Amino acid sequence: MKILIQNGQLLTMATKEPELRDGDIAIEDGKILAIGQPPTGFSPDKVIDGSDTIVMPGLINAHTHVSMALMRNYADDLPFWPWLTEKIWPIEANLNGDDCYWGAMLSIAEMIRGGVTCFADMYFFMDRVAQAVKETGIRANLSRGLVGGNDAMAKLQENVDFFKEWHNAENGRVQVDLGPHAPYTCDAETLKIISAKAKEIGANIHIHLSESEKEVADAKENWGATPIAHVNKTGIFENPTLAAHCVHLEEGDIEILRDKKISVINNPGSNMKLANGFAPVKQLLDAGVNVALGTDGSSSNNNQNLFEEMNYAALLNKGTSMDSTAIPAYTALQMATINGAKALRIEDKVGTLEVGKDADIILVDVNKAHFFPRFNMIASLVYSAQASDVKTVMVQGKLLMEDYKLLTMDEKNVWQQADQCAQRLKTLAQEAAK
Amino acid sequence: MKILIQNGQLLTMATKEPELRDGDIAIEDGKILAIGQPPTGFSPDKVIDGSDTIVMPGLINAHTHVSMALMRNYADDLPFWPWLTEKIWPIEANLNGDDCYWGAMLSIAEMIRGGVTCFADMYFFMDRVAQAVKETGIRANLSRGLVGGNDAMAKLQENVDFFKEWHNAENGRVQVDLGPHAPYTCDAETLKIISAKAKEIGANIHIHLSESEKEVADAKENWGATPIAHVNKTGIFENPTLAAHCVHLEEGDIEILRDKKISVINNPGSNMKLANGFAPVKQLLDAGVNVALGTDGSSSNNNQNLFEEMNYAALLNKGTSMDSTAIPAYTALQMATINGAKALRIEDKVGTLEVGKDADIILVDVNKAHFFPRFNMIASLVYSAQASDVKTVMVQGKLLMEDYKLLTMDEKNVWQQADQCAQRLKTLAQEAAK
Repeated sequence: MKILIQNGQLLTMATKEPELRDGDIAIEDGKILAIGQPPTGFSPDKVIDGSDTIVMPGLINAHTHVSMALMRNYADDLPFWPWLTEKIWPIEANLNGDDCYWGAMLSIAEMIRGGVTCFADMYFFMDRVAQAVKETGIRANLSRGLVGGNDAMAKLQENVDFFKEWHNAENGRVQVDLGPHAPYTCDAETLKIISAKAKEIGANIHIHLSESEKEVADAKENWGATPIAHVNKTGIFENPTLAAHCVHLEEGDIEILRDKKISVINNPGSNMKLANGFAPVKQLLDAGVNVALGTDGSSSNNNQNLFEEMNYAALLNKGTSMDSTAIPAYTALQMATINGAKALRIEDKVGTLEVGKDADIILVDVNKAHFFPRFNMIASLVYSAQASDVKTVMVQGKLLMEDYKLLTMDEKNVWQQADQCAQRLKTLAQEAAK
Repeated sequence: MKILIQNGQLLTMATKEPELRDGDIAIEDGKILAIGQPPTGFSPDKVIDGSDTIVMPGLINAHTHVSMALMRNYADDLPFWPWLTEKIWPIEANLNGDDCYWGAMLSIAEMIRGGVTCFADMYFFMDRVAQAVKETGIRANLSRGLVGGNDAMAKLQENVDFFKEWHNAENGRVQVDLGPHAPYTCDAETLKIISAKAKEIGANIHIHLSESEKEVADAKENWGATPIAHVNKTGIFENPTLAAHCVHLEEGDIEILRDKKISVINNPGSNMKLANGFAPVKQLLDAGVNVALGTDGSSSNNNQNLFEEMNYAALLNKGTSMDSTAIPAYTALQMATINGAKALRIEDKVGTLEVGKDADIILVDVNKAHFFPRFNMIASLVYSAQASDVKTVMVQGKLLMEDYKLLTMDEKNVWQQADQCAQRLKTLAQEAAK
């Protein structure tokens, strides 16, 4: 299959400085064959008109729990503990594989519509999430959430079996990571075992770290170390690691993250909603840490809108640092593209538009009032755009959305199925509370 | 003209607690005739199907400079002074009435698309802005920006003449306020004269206050008082006043704002972008101050998206206060509707859906992935929605957008005209810099 994208403004994200250029993109067998001019004699099976669009790499949502779409707008404006223990845990208690499948499908519908072509996930029933990824054509790094306790080793085995079955499946679209939930839910011994297993099979680690003030205070009381310093001692960081949140950092934490080449996943929307505060993104980037962006699950956000997270990242860091040059637009775009790819260890395949990489490409429709006048269109993606401006989306050259129409799912059925699952879970949670 | 909106979920904003109810809305001659059931024998000329929508009051953008749409994405990620003196002032230097008209039209297109039915503006060539308001059918409180200097009185006279011509024009859709820019651009004597004039003609005051740290420090050095305490001495606050920003408040400021019944207009996006920080919205509301929402001009935001500002208001105040119950969704919605109406002193006409009020109504299309499952749909408007979810908009019963189509302007022509104005101004600014 040969595709030609014509007449677009290309934002390749492959340049150090912001650069928008005219040019075509030729795609063959799911990979980018040429940028600028198609090769002589290139005869496309399909031509996509990119007029009045910005053609750019698909966004990477580097930390989420897609199946938690079922808990969107279920529990809002509550203190953290009642939110978690009285609302989220009871509704999670009856989750089954079908729920996780339909929740994943709902998040994937939303993500494709918003230009997300890849996500990193941690949750349960991950074979069902993988099935949703397979069917919809999106790309994902998936991990089974691991917590300590009696069945910790069974869960780890489940994650390892899942790795064996799905890692590099679907032409490499699916990657499998190991997902120790957090140091406060996995004891040090469990983390050591997971760490050794990751090393043995060559898996990334996906973990939550230093999300709340309480977590850091408890860590210091229990282990005499910050969560990051504590986890560092378990060997986890000897593996490529996605560390979600990293909001509350203390002396030495940033040095560990930098020295161990840990990728931090910033989730600004979720961190605000749960009143955890603001991660020191500028300090992390200045120190040379790779920082990517995530939405977190829709139970605490409440969407899978990475345009919103880019906007938060750029604006919040200006507001908190009182420096209007902090996190310029292009940096926010890097966080949502190439930095995400580096975090997921797939930067050889995606994250920029470059010859030889997979054709994970989105077209952003700039024929909207908020994209005029035509000044800095790169800034407009971060400061003016909405996720709904994404018009066309492909992964490995396969169209998932064309001209605002989803092509790999029956969207209305997804809404209805997910709603049915969610209402059933709510009823069960209410009955259990009686 | 009789209109019936059927089958929608009504969010009237007239209740103290969040409440969504089924029901129809009957409209006659631009006013709400009935809510729930249409009167017996009501025979509508037009029926609007509100199925799968939330029917709610139009949003009120209580502080903006609509013509500055021409400077959108013109100067981003810069320190404040170079931004203002090297970019914004030079491009403003050659603004003419046509520019202000097309800039206003561009902002109005964007606002209607995002469910804004009313805005409060301060800028130049306000007769041309009024013309845009007249033609498009949107509602506005307009003021001429007043600064001190040799021609201060001529500008005040211009604002007064504008008041005489346009105040209560267009069936009350246009209101005129007086617009002293700020205490650092209007000396105390000028403020006193403006204050007396406002009292004489019965106009509101629209002013910028305590936006930056520098403004507050300078005020204390120059006058031995915060900007708010200083302005209070000029008599300005004896008039109904919209005080934009109020980010940096010191002891006594909130008491003055409360005692003088000043409405604070919170502009969270602009305050972050220009690195001014975060206004203490929760403290202001807790003290009983009326707080509304604004976008500010698109030179510092960079859009006119009030859904985004609602989202910021709810999330930021959780993040800054470390309290996940701060500014719940319904409060953010109140800020964007009834509080805005109170600020503009038009709460007898708009801000809620109530019998006898003007039919300024929007329909939000919830048939989108991010509105599922159907749990708390009020929270979804603040935490999940995008401005682009607004489907239909009316002001005084006149449709400005129906089923995503703008009805009172040639939108593409507006984009092009505004772009031409902006490019000409850029060229002139560049030539002047040589």
